[in-house]
Amino acid sequence: MAQVRNKQILASGYITGNPKQTDMYLKNSTITLQLPLHASSETVLVKNLVLSCDPYMRGTKRTDRNSLFNSFSPDSPIVGYGVCKVLDSKHPDFQKGDLVWGITKWEEYSIITKTDSFIKIEHTDVPLSYYNGLLGMPGMTAYAGFYEVGFPKKGDYVFISSAFGAVGQLVGQLAKLLGCYVVGSAGSKYKVDILKSKFGFDEAFNYKEEQDLDATLKKYFPNGIDIYFDNVGGDMLEAALVNMRRLGRIVVAGMISQYELDEPQGIKNLVNIVYKQIKVDAFTVYDYYHLYPKFLDTILPYIREGKITYVEDIANGIESGPAALEAMFTGKSSGKQVVLLAHE
Amino acid sequence: MAQVRNKQILASGYITGNPKQTDMYLKNSTITLQLPLHASSETVLVKNLVLSCDPYMRGTKRTDRNSLFNSFSPDSPIVGYGVCKVLDSKHPDFQKGDLVWGITKWEEYSIITKTDSFIKIEHTDVPLSYYNGLLGMPGMTAYAGFYEVGFPKKGDYVFISSAFGAVGQLVGQLAKLLGCYVVGSAGSKYKVDILKSKFGFDEAFNYKEEQDLDATLKKYFPNGIDIYFDNVGGDMLEAALVNMRRLGRIVVAGMISQYELDEPQGIKNLVNIVYKQIKVDAFTVYDYYHLYPKFLDTILPYIREGKITYVEDIANGIESGPAALEAMFTGKSSGKQVVLLAHE
Repeated sequence: MAQVRNKQILASGYITGNPKQTDMYLKNSTITLQLPLHASSETVLVKNLVLSCDPYMRGTKRTDRNSLFNSFSPDSPIVGYGVCKVLDSKHPDFQKGDLVWGITKWEEYSIITKTDSFIKIEHTDVPLSYYNGLLGMPGMTAYAGFYEVGFPKKGDYVFISSAFGAVGQLVGQLAKLLGCYVVGSAGSKYKVDILKSKFGFDEAFNYKEEQDLDATLKKYFPNGIDIYFDNVGGDMLEAALVNMRRLGRIVVAGMISQYELDEPQGIKNLVNIVYKQIKVDAFTVYDYYHLYPKFLDTILPYIREGKITYVEDIANGIESGPAALEAMFTGKSSGKQVVLLAHE
Repeated sequence: MAQVRNKQILASGYITGNPKQTDMYLKNSTITLQLPLHASSETVLVKNLVLSCDPYMRGTKRTDRNSLFNSFSPDSPIVGYGVCKVLDSKHPDFQKGDLVWGITKWEEYSIITKTDSFIKIEHTDVPLSYYNGLLGMPGMTAYAGFYEVGFPKKGDYVFISSAFGAVGQLVGQLAKLLGCYVVGSAGSKYKVDILKSKFGFDEAFNYKEEQDLDATLKKYFPNGIDIYFDNVGGDMLEAALVNMRRLGRIVVAGMISQYELDEPQGIKNLVNIVYKQIKVDAFTVYDYYHLYPKFLDTILPYIREGKITYVEDIANGIESGPAALEAMFTGKSSGKQVVLLAHE
């Protein structure tokens, strides 16, 4: 059978910290669009339609980091989430023509031998790219973190850092739908405006323009914070600890401000958790994937009714992948960052 | 009706930080052992039998501290837990002759108008002083913290700081009864020996003799810690964070190392909660008092069967109260510190 072109994005070497465009390069390979006869029984050949840029896609020096997989191996395609179409399959659960989302590689076509992350896409009346964000891993992170870890209730005062991120957007909208008072922080006036106008946040602020985060939070939460959905750690966590209410919950989805530091920042206000009986709970979405059907049942109707919306930054073509990934880490993406390779 | 002597221990002035003997003084007052006719409908006159010395009995500069009551007001009797006998009562739930435990005052006889903390003692086949410790607020703290906050399971690796304290003793024994591996830290060889010989801890160490707490915990927990029951905060919390296992739980009952500091210590290893999806949960026993009957049903049989034991340091006579309280804060008490005033 004839071979076709297979453009790939590969890592130049080992990456430490946040990846830059220059850490990756394009390679023009070829591939046969049929699985070899000897392919193992769970192997699937896919066409990658949309690739996902996510904050976990970074090198780490920390050996104690619990990573399910490494996105970067020298001269190998970047590994990450994507939406794919099955072209050939030895796996009993996936047939030619199926749409799936899960962990794939940054190339036009991939042979995937480890398919445990694949979830078949049953609902195609929403943008397929949503399965990289709102309806994929970030969406599940928002849902599990808010409902299963945050124990939210109507009327709660909710603060979300990195609120414009792939996770924060949904957390804020879920909180509003429940009847919470919601404030978000983000890194630009553009993002702050969208948080309020499109996502219905009660308030939002640009953390880069604030001198004293403690005072800022006191201004927006004169009665204190019930739930802090923390994506950043560091100074924002410090300020939030001071402003939490009794029995408050800090849901830690990430501490992106800390990963690049040689020595992590000391958090001085931790003793507040004793004074105010606060729960600080870090979690990983992988422990909650069994809730995915329930999640879809909850979110899909909201999307169809226009009650939940989502902002994506769609880069076009696999060549734009490295710049898109760098943009996500530097806060330049204007929405959940994805890379569109093909519509079908 | 004739008046009788009523020795009292009063606070000399406002107390900041840990109380010293010299912050209190003895006063010989008198009292009539009958409630006045005009006493309000919930008032109770009690004879104080055993008074309790507990770590919350300290002055604090912090305005955000959530205290249910203040133990020290100038020239007023110290306020704290005690076991009492009812001598006269306007309260429908308490009759003359009843034994109760709850918040009373450091004096031989007290008129208590705020009796919401009082719990009637139904089981007197155990030492009455236990209702200040093992069967009182510290015991409930251990029980609620271990079971309701720690989510323990058989085989868990459990570390308890201040393990010889009024709370730690019981946490360790509950963990052993469940089939956990239990290590405790304490501040003297005497305490370490009792933790192992009497309470059945698998291991125990004197934290004052350890130079590198991280290495110490690695030695005792080569596979890591599932539950850290934290009574101290600070350096021990820092070391525990590094040694927690994935999905570990840090149950924060107190951070006694931090209360005296002008500026709290920065906790640098907090980012570990993200790497390992750790839950840090501070709690107060007051949110779990509805479980008290269930607690008694669990603990009383263990006491009767000798499966749970308790070490008390019993100071004799109200005059010994100030020294006993200071001893508890300086780690000199050889067991849960109580002050015995009368047997009945």
